[in-house]
Amino acid sequence: MTEDLLKNIYSGDKRSIAKAITIIENDLPGKNEILKSAFLKSGKAHRIGITGPPGAGKSSLTNCLVKLLTDNGFKVGVIAVDPTSPFTGGALLGDRIRMQEIGMLPGVFIRSMATRGSLGGLSQNVSEACDILDASGKDFILIETVGVGQSELDIAQTADTVLVVLVPESGDAVQAMKAGLMEIADIFVLNKADRQGADGIAATIKNIIHLKPANEFNWTINVLKTISIQNKGIEELLKEINSHFSYMKENGFLQKRRKDNLRKKIFELVNDRLRISFWDDKHKATLEQNLDSITSRKKDIYSFVKEIL
Amino acid sequence: MTEDLLKNIYSGDKRSIAKAITIIENDLPGKNEILKSAFLKSGKAHRIGITGPPGAGKSSLTNCLVKLLTDNGFKVGVIAVDPTSPFTGGALLGDRIRMQEIGMLPGVFIRSMATRGSLGGLSQNVSEACDILDASGKDFILIETVGVGQSELDIAQTADTVLVVLVPESGDAVQAMKAGLMEIADIFVLNKADRQGADGIAATIKNIIHLKPANEFNWTINVLKTISIQNKGIEELLKEINSHFSYMKENGFLQKRRKDNLRKKIFELVNDRLRISFWDDKHKATLEQNLDSITSRKKDIYSFVKEIL
Repeated sequence: MTEDLLKNIYSGDKRSIAKAITIIENDLPGKNEILKSAFLKSGKAHRIGITGPPGAGKSSLTNCLVKLLTDNGFKVGVIAVDPTSPFTGGALLGDRIRMQEIGMLPGVFIRSMATRGSLGGLSQNVSEACDILDASGKDFILIETVGVGQSELDIAQTADTVLVVLVPESGDAVQAMKAGLMEIADIFVLNKADRQGADGIAATIKNIIHLKPANEFNWTINVLKTISIQNKGIEELLKEINSHFSYMKENGFLQKRRKDNLRKKIFELVNDRLRISFWDDKHKATLEQNLDSITSRKKDIYSFVKEIL
Repeated sequence: MTEDLLKNIYSGDKRSIAKAITIIENDLPGKNEILKSAFLKSGKAHRIGITGPPGAGKSSLTNCLVKLLTDNGFKVGVIAVDPTSPFTGGALLGDRIRMQEIGMLPGVFIRSMATRGSLGGLSQNVSEACDILDASGKDFILIETVGVGQSELDIAQTADTVLVVLVPESGDAVQAMKAGLMEIADIFVLNKADRQGADGIAATIKNIIHLKPANEFNWTINVLKTISIQNKGIEELLKEINSHFSYMKENGFLQKRRKDNLRKKIFELVNDRLRISFWDDKHKATLEQNLDSITSRKKDIYSFVKEIL
């Protein structure tokens, strides 16, 4: 069964890819075999992280990039990380409809993945879904996340190239700095660049880039202007994305960056297993038995931790 | 030495409290003894988390609360969690100066704690500093964090009462929802309530509260208006804070909430120790030896994780 599924994934079959991601998300039988096989077949696609504050137009920019890449004959996968709130229900309806249209294009696969309780789990699921898309023969994988939490930044950071999308609203650049977005950008995209204040904010971002110490790869971070709803500036952006990838590849930096990302992923996987295997029923019961005397300060937390270990 | 320090902490000596927090932050000798002793002496103070987006006026609101509490004869500790960016340098200068003034008041202790690499470490340090302040005889401990990351939310959530501070800017409530702030509020504070749109946003927040399923303690979340720079609405806010604390206490919910928080803290401490003791030099070396063949897909990540465990 799983063997057939894998064969279909590697021939690019959309339904099989979707099924495999569902198996991973829900921890269903076959997961391990799929993960191992897909991992060994992955490593060819160019992974692009697209992040930025809510409302920056990341979804429409992603759509423009997908169209352009498809027009150029490339196969594209998209993972949209959707930090659902019980109130907002996640992405806007318009975004969803646009995404569905894009998903109809040949060679394009789109999947939205949402936070279900633990963000740690999401981050692993996204990276595993990327491996499947990679193994299925996609040339480009776009990972779209909202840059509001550390975990979403971590997800974006697993990409080969990270775009940080901002809009010319006052204060946006400062907020982006506070949210840690400035530290992870390979390319800045100033979207909705026809709005008032665009030149001012582009200059501010450039100034901030100059203040930063050079990044480890000595890559020059540029600010590109786009107007995604008019499909403007997308070709220039794709050129810059490709330049970054070539630069990283030619200098051996891509290998270095991917190695660093895999190291982090292994740490995460191992630490998860350690945690899960330690907190068995016996240890959980011990904790619960002691919790009342700890809460009432009859016992201190540090002695208990030593004891249980 | 440590015994003397502890004695001075418990008599409320500011310099000794500061020294103890420095010992904890920097992992200096005496740390364990201080932590154990302070933990056993803690549990009396009312811990109040104050969070919200940057620019909501959390610092000035904190200052107003500290003044009012001090006027009423209470001893107050403040921990300001400061997610420093290499660019912004953290808090605004004006905030820092105001904080210094407040710190001069008798019985008031203020400490700013910053992210140094890992937020996990910060969250533990903050909770340990709160234990010290608690053990030193403070009646109230205010923990001020910026609600931009999950970890800062986690810190705020260790409090007995959580205030979420918003301002009447358009979109602020929606952003707050996306950032998970809505889920953790016991009390909403609409600060800068003299600005345009204040009533509209207050109504929006109330609507959102009504849409939410009742929280586990069945507490009614209210929206309070303040203008902190004019010191307006602070007494009403304090009254609401005290009502929340009484409600939680009388119904046994406070004990339940603190127990839940301690459970989380124990999980964190244990998982940290597991991680640290696993990743010794031998295991780190094994990882590095295998990383190249993993990166080049000669070996898969999952088999390696199994192997190293």
